[in-house]
Amino acid sequence: MPIINEHYLKLPGNYLFAEIAKRVAAFKQEHQDANIIRLGIGDVTRPLPLKTIEAMHEAVDEMSKEDTFRGYGPEQGYAFLSEKIIEYDYKSRGVDLSVDEIFISDGSKCDVGNIQEIFGINNKIAITDPVYPVYLDTNVMAGRTGVLMDNGKFEGITYLTCSAENNFVPAIPNEKVDLIYLCCPNNPTGTTLTKEQLKKWVDYAKSVNAIILFDSAYEAYINEPDIPHSIYEIEGAKDVALEFRSFSKNAGFTGARCAFTVVPKTVFGDDGKGGKHPLNAMWNRRHCTKFNGTSYIIQRGAAAVYTPEGQKQVKEIVGYYMENSKIICEGLKDLGLEVYGGVNAPYIWLKTPNNMDSWAFFDKLLNEANIVGTPGSGFGPAGRGYFRLTAFGSRENTIAAIERMKTRLSL
Amino acid sequence: MPIINEHYLKLPGNYLFAEIAKRVAAFKQEHQDANIIRLGIGDVTRPLPLKTIEAMHEAVDEMSKEDTFRGYGPEQGYAFLSEKIIEYDYKSRGVDLSVDEIFISDGSKCDVGNIQEIFGINNKIAITDPVYPVYLDTNVMAGRTGVLMDNGKFEGITYLTCSAENNFVPAIPNEKVDLIYLCCPNNPTGTTLTKEQLKKWVDYAKSVNAIILFDSAYEAYINEPDIPHSIYEIEGAKDVALEFRSFSKNAGFTGARCAFTVVPKTVFGDDGKGGKHPLNAMWNRRHCTKFNGTSYIIQRGAAAVYTPEGQKQVKEIVGYYMENSKIICEGLKDLGLEVYGGVNAPYIWLKTPNNMDSWAFFDKLLNEANIVGTPGSGFGPAGRGYFRLTAFGSRENTIAAIERMKTRLSL
Repeated sequence: MPIINEHYLKLPGNYLFAEIAKRVAAFKQEHQDANIIRLGIGDVTRPLPLKTIEAMHEAVDEMSKEDTFRGYGPEQGYAFLSEKIIEYDYKSRGVDLSVDEIFISDGSKCDVGNIQEIFGINNKIAITDPVYPVYLDTNVMAGRTGVLMDNGKFEGITYLTCSAENNFVPAIPNEKVDLIYLCCPNNPTGTTLTKEQLKKWVDYAKSVNAIILFDSAYEAYINEPDIPHSIYEIEGAKDVALEFRSFSKNAGFTGARCAFTVVPKTVFGDDGKGGKHPLNAMWNRRHCTKFNGTSYIIQRGAAAVYTPEGQKQVKEIVGYYMENSKIICEGLKDLGLEVYGGVNAPYIWLKTPNNMDSWAFFDKLLNEANIVGTPGSGFGPAGRGYFRLTAFGSRENTIAAIERMKTRLSL
Repeated sequence: MPIINEHYLKLPGNYLFAEIAKRVAAFKQEHQDANIIRLGIGDVTRPLPLKTIEAMHEAVDEMSKEDTFRGYGPEQGYAFLSEKIIEYDYKSRGVDLSVDEIFISDGSKCDVGNIQEIFGINNKIAITDPVYPVYLDTNVMAGRTGVLMDNGKFEGITYLTCSAENNFVPAIPNEKVDLIYLCCPNNPTGTTLTKEQLKKWVDYAKSVNAIILFDSAYEAYINEPDIPHSIYEIEGAKDVALEFRSFSKNAGFTGARCAFTVVPKTVFGDDGKGGKHPLNAMWNRRHCTKFNGTSYIIQRGAAAVYTPEGQKQVKEIVGYYMENSKIICEGLKDLGLEVYGGVNAPYIWLKTPNNMDSWAFFDKLLNEANIVGTPGSGFGPAGRGYFRLTAFGSRENTIAAIERMKTRLSL
């Protein structure tokens, strides 16, 4: 019998959202009339912007006619989309990129999960704690860690604690690391780094020859002026950082699927024998060997985001969610809870009352107010005693959720 | 600087289709008026079936309204599609599968490229020669091979030669192997295995505890009765085989992107310590950790293939290409060439005249007849002296190509 990838066995059995689904299903079984409000998973609920809908219809029609039909497209994505990305997302912020530094994909989860493949197995990985689980799990599966220890951490990983104590700003590690995953605005904490704070990380990466894997899936939610939308707004970042972006959270593409990765040609890896290799060529090889391009129909939809009307429609959607965020933040503060995030991100990160265990608070919220959130401990040991709510619900449900918490929750 | 994945450096620099594109571009530069006919890459040209177009329009409309909008779907795909796959593709052939044995994806290239991740690094891999390059390249990148040797083979891989001498039926290897990639109907040779021939492989896999990774992307092209459409038509295969299918070549989804993998719960891997692990759970973990589901819009289109009209429309498209195949096969035979495949597959595999080098024949065909094909040597050392043409062109171009070969080619 073939030997399996033994590293998979290091992962704990229960994936966070599977456990949530299980508990919600059990609750529903016992309380069939309960009207559950879900503010747990980071999934959008507003329909796609009208411009993307129109573009997708057009693209579907093209696929129905011989002379406009499209078969395999470029694995890296169509230039009609990459060019718009550069113009709207980068050039407008003073960042120069070329079309072959943009790799379109069918989702950021794929990109941030697959990127580790182009690196050797012995690189030292740093992740923030709490963290989006994909960064960690994919490195565990690849064999870059030891086992899960009793403290909830994997052997061999450098954890960068983000908590109320350090205002959710990860400290530069004492040991040398090679690859650093940063998510800003952050999932799950909803907090951000200022340009000055992020510059320290770019400088650190330069000083130790590390590479930053920068996930800015939530950049559309940034409201405050000093928060960088792209890491390339920081001087020197084009030598040390890759950036991951998505259409999921700005334009609502979680079900449509489109994202992209920026790999500047000025970022290099070492072959261990003194040779330098551009990561752009490495990722291009990976992308072309294991991926056959993002659906033409979906790329056309994504490109429509980059029109004046598309931009306006995206802003309206983001504005809708951020109004929800404000309602949640204010409501929780009225309840006397400690609240973080929610200003430049659609995530609200709260300290559980009386240092309650995250899962205990999950059960309490579900039982007393019929609201589903996400236990902070699911994102890492430093998330213990925290809890995540999202602003992605409908306005009606968001208002109702806060009302229920005020009237039904015994704090 | 982080260390790169050193195994990437073992891959030869020029990817087959990149080299073809380069030579065609150079030719066009010198002959700007030349009307080039492309029968090289395996990409479809007929528009999508009308039923899939209608379903995609409907799905796009649903995405525009709050009450029918879809965000994240199941990573494994929607049951509305998996259920139809089981009903039409498997139950109809006497194969029982359950919905959670089907994993929908955005493409077979991803699936056959990613599947190796769930296996340990020391498994012995067997591939046919010639072969679809993705099977080999993804194992090279994962570190399951040594270097590329002077004979064009990678150290550590078991090559199963398929040539005119053995009628393109790979022989059971003498050494024990763990994972066997079989593609049937075959890309690039266009040949197939009968039920009896495939049964030998299933029996062999059972006898040595190996697993067969069975790629049947071209099953829709099977015309002859004794050719299995699924490996699960062979007794015992559900214990030893995973199967890969795609909507690319039957319904023309190369640009739309949809495929699926079948992982029966009865196929196991060993953890090296005596423990057996279902590959279904392993692949589910991989799929859920690194993939966020296939676009809802595209899955709706794929599901429309499984309607009476959808089936009829797919049959018409396949019939169109197979008529092309017949025209090519007959034309080449008229020219006195040795021709293989093309009966149960859209690929025609020809022996180059006078044992000409594959690339020399490529250049000759391009220069004399302005036709682009694919050199057999690009698929492995046993493809040397062979050449692949595809039936995916338009009828007009296919007829013109044969006419040109008859009138312009000096043989």
